Amino acid sequence: MKRARFIARGRALEGTLQGGVLVDHAGEAHDPESVTWRLPVTPGKVLGLALNYADHAAELELNKPEEPALFWKPNTSLLPHKGTVIYPQGAQYMHYEVELALIIGRTARRVKERDAYDIVGGYTIANDLVVRDYVTNTFRPPIRGKGWDTFGPLGPFYVTADEVANPDDLGLRAFVNGEKRQEGNTRDMIFKIPEIIAFVSRFMTLEAGDVILTGTPKGISHVRVGDTMRLEIDGLGALENDVALETEDAEPVRGQEARVKL
Amino acid sequence: MKRARFIARGRALEGTLQGGVLVDHAGEAHDPESVTWRLPVTPGKVLGLALNYADHAAELELNKPEEPALFWKPNTSLLPHKGTVIYPQGAQYMHYEVELALIIGRTARRVKERDAYDIVGGYTIANDLVVRDYVTNTFRPPIRGKGWDTFGPLGPFYVTADEVANPDDLGLRAFVNGEKRQEGNTRDMIFKIPEIIAFVSRFMTLEAGDVILTGTPKGISHVRVGDTMRLEIDGLGALENDVALETEDAEPVRGQEARVKL
Repeated sequence: MKRARFIARGRALEGTLQGGVLVDHAGEAHDPESVTWRLPVTPGKVLGLALNYADHAAELELNKPEEPALFWKPNTSLLPHKGTVIYPQGAQYMHYEVELALIIGRTARRVKERDAYDIVGGYTIANDLVVRDYVTNTFRPPIRGKGWDTFGPLGPFYVTADEVANPDDLGLRAFVNGEKRQEGNTRDMIFKIPEIIAFVSRFMTLEAGDVILTGTPKGISHVRVGDTMRLEIDGLGALENDVALETEDAEPVRGQEARVKL
Repeated sequence: MKRARFIARGRALEGTLQGGVLVDHAGEAHDPESVTWRLPVTPGKVLGLALNYADHAAELELNKPEEPALFWKPNTSLLPHKGTVIYPQGAQYMHYEVELALIIGRTARRVKERDAYDIVGGYTIANDLVVRDYVTNTFRPPIRGKGWDTFGPLGPFYVTADEVANPDDLGLRAFVNGEKRQEGNTRDMIFKIPEIIAFVSRFMTLEAGDVILTGTPKGISHVRVGDTMRLEIDGLGALENDVALETEDAEPVRGQEARVKL
């Protein structure tokens, strides 16, 4: 199933995408073009892998990692399909990254490679936005480079694991203003999904709803104010977000619902 | 007020510490020695500052940072007062770090230094445990070094901001098996609380309940299986945790309640 969360007719709804139409739990149909998309999940945490495609490591002139090189995307950086990415004032080099995102379906620790797919609940598309200016050699990749509000578009929906026959053979593409900039296939990941889950869960409990971004292939390049990004993964749809310049007096940008309070 | 969460007589309760006694919302008193402590807050995210005391940067033979050097502690690493820290099989050098933890009281972005204290809801003690073996030069400080389940003791309670007259002048001490190993004062932080909040909130929304660890002074040293750590900060009580060896067949260790699901 393609599971989606959205706002329509003033209500926050959940449902599934069936034949191009969003059907909510009450059986009502909604036009995907007219709803406001919400994040397909509410993760407890979002992890990413840096340099998990050899051709991308090469374009950054960096060595392939010897073990999964983990980084963090804050929950507050997440942004739904069609949400607006904010380009920070003064940033020189901001770029997109199309990535297959795993959604953890069952809380687990110490998962063996052979059992890893048992805890994957589904798959979606992530855009791991970065401002390269803020990636220093001392603390690379820094939270400031990847952690801005709106730097984590995710969606539009997620596809349950039973409908993804081979997550290790999915084409990924990124377009900016309709021009193809990035193209790859998940078969070229250095650390495969079972290795990633075994490595992370060796020391950290993975909870239902957590998200892991599995890395990006070659083809990063500038994204600028006014651009529209469209990221596609075979079978997972297309994630679209445009880019607007940060204004100094902007209100806080929120990627998701309010969280647990004090 | 000293706000605490705990389990007593089979119930998960919240209350305050008054004259050495825990008083729940129904007015019942509980002996702090007989309750099971829970985390004082449920953060959406936990950030830390590396190398925020010059004497600690010097003992690691590292330069002082030019801007706050941020790292992440996963929510799943959090552990309440009196919880047992798990020593990973095969780890060579694990150490404690006593740190003043800020608890964000109001969701905010782009907070100016002069307004920073307005969004601090309270203060507590954190133990930023690390296995130094896993801190590589390439991705330093890595998630694997600081992100293990149980590597984030926090508590025992938090003290509301109105009761902490000067958070910039608090003594911190860490004891292992009763021996003082670490002693410092928050006045020696390189980046002060207003600078930290302004820096982080410049790009990331800070949400109510989020936690920021403000760094540790000089005095890190080995902690070993069977040790008991006691961390004190003036006015904030004492956070105690002991250390046990990881067993291969252990169940997942959970630092907090189950989180939002798919």
